[in-house]
Amino acid sequence: MDVSTIKNPKFLKKMPVDQMIDLAKDIRSFLIHKLSKTGGHLAPNLGVVELTLALHKVFNSPEDKLIWDVGHQSYVHKILTGRGDQFDTLRQYKGLCGFPKRSESEHDVWETGHSSTSLSAALGMAVARDLKHENFDVVAIIGDGALTGGMALEALNDIGHQKRNMIIVLNDNEMSIAPNVGAMHNMLNRIRSANKYNRAKEDIEYLMKRIPAFGGKLASVAERLKDRLKYMLVSGVFFEELGITYLGPVDGHNFEALIDNLNYAKKRKGPVLIHILTQKGKGYKPAELDEVGTWHGTGPYKIESGAFIKPVAVAPAYSKVVNDTLQEIARKDDRVVVISPAMVVGSKLEGFGREFPDRLFDVGIAEQHAATFAAGLATQNMKPVLSIYSTFMQRAYDQLVHDICRQNLNVVIAVDRAGLVGADGETHQGIFDVGFLRELPNLTIMMGKDEKELRNMIFTALHYDRGPIAVRYPRGNGLGVAMNEAPELIPIGKWEVLREGHDAAVLAFGPMLQVVLDAAKHLESEKIKIKVVNARFIKPLDHEMLSELSQSGMPLLTVEEGLLDGGFGSSIMEFFHDYGDHEHIIERMGIDDCYVEHGSVGELLEELGLTSEQICVRIRKMLKEQNPKNGIRKVFTS
Amino acid sequence: MDVSTIKNPKFLKKMPVDQMIDLAKDIRSFLIHKLSKTGGHLAPNLGVVELTLALHKVFNSPEDKLIWDVGHQSYVHKILTGRGDQFDTLRQYKGLCGFPKRSESEHDVWETGHSSTSLSAALGMAVARDLKHENFDVVAIIGDGALTGGMALEALNDIGHQKRNMIIVLNDNEMSIAPNVGAMHNMLNRIRSANKYNRAKEDIEYLMKRIPAFGGKLASVAERLKDRLKYMLVSGVFFEELGITYLGPVDGHNFEALIDNLNYAKKRKGPVLIHILTQKGKGYKPAELDEVGTWHGTGPYKIESGAFIKPVAVAPAYSKVVNDTLQEIARKDDRVVVISPAMVVGSKLEGFGREFPDRLFDVGIAEQHAATFAAGLATQNMKPVLSIYSTFMQRAYDQLVHDICRQNLNVVIAVDRAGLVGADGETHQGIFDVGFLRELPNLTIMMGKDEKELRNMIFTALHYDRGPIAVRYPRGNGLGVAMNEAPELIPIGKWEVLREGHDAAVLAFGPMLQVVLDAAKHLESEKIKIKVVNARFIKPLDHEMLSELSQSGMPLLTVEEGLLDGGFGSSIMEFFHDYGDHEHIIERMGIDDCYVEHGSVGELLEELGLTSEQICVRIRKMLKEQNPKNGIRKVFTS
Repeated sequence: MDVSTIKNPKFLKKMPVDQMIDLAKDIRSFLIHKLSKTGGHLAPNLGVVELTLALHKVFNSPEDKLIWDVGHQSYVHKILTGRGDQFDTLRQYKGLCGFPKRSESEHDVWETGHSSTSLSAALGMAVARDLKHENFDVVAIIGDGALTGGMALEALNDIGHQKRNMIIVLNDNEMSIAPNVGAMHNMLNRIRSANKYNRAKEDIEYLMKRIPAFGGKLASVAERLKDRLKYMLVSGVFFEELGITYLGPVDGHNFEALIDNLNYAKKRKGPVLIHILTQKGKGYKPAELDEVGTWHGTGPYKIESGAFIKPVAVAPAYSKVVNDTLQEIARKDDRVVVISPAMVVGSKLEGFGREFPDRLFDVGIAEQHAATFAAGLATQNMKPVLSIYSTFMQRAYDQLVHDICRQNLNVVIAVDRAGLVGADGETHQGIFDVGFLRELPNLTIMMGKDEKELRNMIFTALHYDRGPIAVRYPRGNGLGVAMNEAPELIPIGKWEVLREGHDAAVLAFGPMLQVVLDAAKHLESEKIKIKVVNARFIKPLDHEMLSELSQSGMPLLTVEEGLLDGGFGSSIMEFFHDYGDHEHIIERMGIDDCYVEHGSVGELLEELGLTSEQICVRIRKMLKEQNPKNGIRKVFTS
Repeated sequence: MDVSTIKNPKFLKKMPVDQMIDLAKDIRSFLIHKLSKTGGHLAPNLGVVELTLALHKVFNSPEDKLIWDVGHQSYVHKILTGRGDQFDTLRQYKGLCGFPKRSESEHDVWETGHSSTSLSAALGMAVARDLKHENFDVVAIIGDGALTGGMALEALNDIGHQKRNMIIVLNDNEMSIAPNVGAMHNMLNRIRSANKYNRAKEDIEYLMKRIPAFGGKLASVAERLKDRLKYMLVSGVFFEELGITYLGPVDGHNFEALIDNLNYAKKRKGPVLIHILTQKGKGYKPAELDEVGTWHGTGPYKIESGAFIKPVAVAPAYSKVVNDTLQEIARKDDRVVVISPAMVVGSKLEGFGREFPDRLFDVGIAEQHAATFAAGLATQNMKPVLSIYSTFMQRAYDQLVHDICRQNLNVVIAVDRAGLVGADGETHQGIFDVGFLRELPNLTIMMGKDEKELRNMIFTALHYDRGPIAVRYPRGNGLGVAMNEAPELIPIGKWEVLREGHDAAVLAFGPMLQVVLDAAKHLESEKIKIKVVNARFIKPLDHEMLSELSQSGMPLLTVEEGLLDGGFGSSIMEFFHDYGDHEHIIERMGIDDCYVEHGSVGELLEELGLTSEQICVRIRKMLKEQNPKNGIRKVFTS
């Protein structure tokens, strides 16, 4: 069937299983074809085709609430709820979001993007239902990787305590984004292992049959032990210990098994966890064979060969530059260790891991632990590098505030995906960190203008020994500049003038500098000379250069790929007023108090007005309004 | 013995147990007497006297690392490591810190304050040790309450995976700060119950003796089951499932048991958890009998009666005002529910809980879950109030960013302990939140000048239905103002002029307004007329009033009890420059890029220069430097 014509999931109620099997095939074929053009999270969605169909058969969305943890596995749900016709625009500007989105459909009751939130949200919905004496089911669908996130464990603790009716579908594909790690993973592995499971089942059945026959004390002992034995042997004991009924493991590609178990869970009182085994990438060989997570989220690809269609990279990825620099330094300094919360592949740290397997720590989806673990290492004079996406660093904020910065420990924070990230959208933009980091005492924050400077910064950060230091770098590839032979130290707190000028000065850092330089070139053709400053230290600011700028009287413009409220531009204003220069023209460009949806970085910058054209417009306006006589602008113009 | 003369714990190595029993008595007596004068965390420390002595006997601090989770139970450790003579200054300005402090002693290897960090830190130290081929023990001491914090669970997952030699002492006192909650607590309870434990032990021993006798298949089945049975029955299965050896439960007041188990744990390979049962408040009857946590942290008290010596409160505590207002509103609106992460007593929510037991949710130490649980409730049209200390909100930052603010849900965040908190010191000051909250789109932030305005704000926040709204309020008591009969709505984003003036204007919010008003009164005697603005909305700012201030040309001073970088004053500068007023004198007073240690709030404000005297000094300086002719100040004076 043409799955793009599906309007809502009601038709599934009466659909026999053999037809569902055909539908599953059609959905897989649809996904494989559509995503080959747009890219997207192919493997996770191929893994949950049967599960999603079974969920929509057994439950009545939107009355019953389906909550997709992380949410990148919601494509099949989107197809079944009438959005199949929008897949050509998936993850594109103004197109279909790659995550659940309440504005898209009443079937999307909860928005995700970051992991491990579904259980808390589901419990909230279940409590609301009970307090309002309503009657619906709440189902959270969570992966085995997301289950290691601290907040999921906090939620399990509360769920077991509150005993509300709710269903947790544990979508166990043995692999979250990267090969999963951690003790909980090992535990799930033990359960998964069909042999062990069956053996234990046989054993217990055999034992149970015999014991009652003995009579007397042994029988009563056995009676008492029976229940505990039983649940231990089916091995959901971890969850049962927390007061959550465990069902499974269930074959996640078998409709009968899925439907039976979901129906059973629906009838049970209290919280139930159904442990479902799925295969990521199922139905598409290249994705099925993937062991490192390449097919987790992809760009376009050739369907036949599974070859990725990539634009030819003119320069190495920033993440790769960081990895290579770390490897290089680690060869000479065995105190250097790297910690990643489940982003070894995303942050391209495989090279470091191969060369120093005992010095790379993938701690799983566990940002809080990652940060404090790094701090613990630093107390013992190691040189830990916490590699973390800007957006995920929000999960470790308190640990940054107290464990790293307050104790003033030498932790290097390699802040990956700083700035706009593009297609992943709202939940992944790295646009908050300048604001929340710069208020932290003891912390140094920097961002390089290109991959060469990034390399020097990583080197500088590992050389620095007076406290924590954050090195921000963007998603994507460098500029293709020549790399220096040996990395060089950058003086802490010293900016760099990239272009001289006397009409106005623009302060920026990171990729925005290229945009600013373009604007400066253009303005030169209009005889406007712009000074361009590489404000590579976001904290501390370069007080010397700022004093000079103050004395120059030139109007100032700051440009940043982040929130304006409390951001970099705001720190410049703070400097000038603190310095006693209360009459300087300072204007800011950046993101004005909004979340930024998905789209290419270029489209987003356009929407936000962060282009060289808009910089030119702003500079012209600033100069026009400025009174050239006394250097003081007429006020109250806006 | 006079415990204040102890220089280091070495003497314990040779001390026989009977003398240790005497020493324990002396330490208890010392603590009870000293804390009756200074206040402090009495009950937690009385509970760990034997445990701390045993730890220092078995391990060699500081070579071996003792890491105290939360850290308020480190007083005995402080006594044993030579700080007994400083207890008269406990938690006082420039005195002994109530938490471990690396600058105080080489025996304090890790600083705490917030819960659940010890396991991650300990793992970091263990890994550093292994990589450096050193040889020492790492021991984390964590309470049962702290174990429910997500980051502790993240750490357990990694500890079970990494299998390093390290010891986790689970100090299970059946009560964290408040009566503990959650499924994990119930699980520990099952273990704790001596009867059940002994019964299970008997059962298993009986069964084990019999089974091998049967021979044949049953025997081999039994053999296979034996190990699993055994550990299940001693019930540490939760930890064992994660790959951590479980020992216990051990009587935490029995030296032989403690020393034996610690020695055994020391010898074991891999991570070991010793489950120790202690009684909070042991040795002091009033604290032993405490069921709600009154004796967790106290002010001074009379030793004989256990009566607290409290200054007569002239006005209700801010927390109590919030509780009472919530109760009042909840009577009329059954959608109002309150969520607290283990701070029901601290935030004085007992009244609400008594009247609406099914609408108060104490989720345990689990800030991330608390925030997203509230968001889940809000999606179902409930009116959740997330009651959370400013400092603990740092733990839920990502959940605020994405789950609450991005989805623009109607969650009221009651931000308790906003601003300086006093004796708890660095880790508890609520001085970061204005900075990290104000960059969040969709969020409204307010703080009242007194308890009446706070009450109106809670009412306003629950009435508001266009997104999340944070109401900040300080620790301590209100001003004693008359309360209005019925609470009143405050127009969103509207400030209030508390005092008219034309020489300069001061913008402040919360308790600082009293300090500012004092300054204004004083300056009036010098013929300086200060306009004082109650900037009760931190976001959105009152654009109308700010425009008027801009046009008035009056120099502006902002005063805030928080970090200056990116804080409230900074938002005022942003407004003026965005508004096109680039020549306004704006100065800021606040906390200048540092963590703030313990002391009374008054002493801390003095140290930080946030007094009415200093405000007067600053205003005089500003007016002197201002050129009265054109309203423009001479520049570059600093």
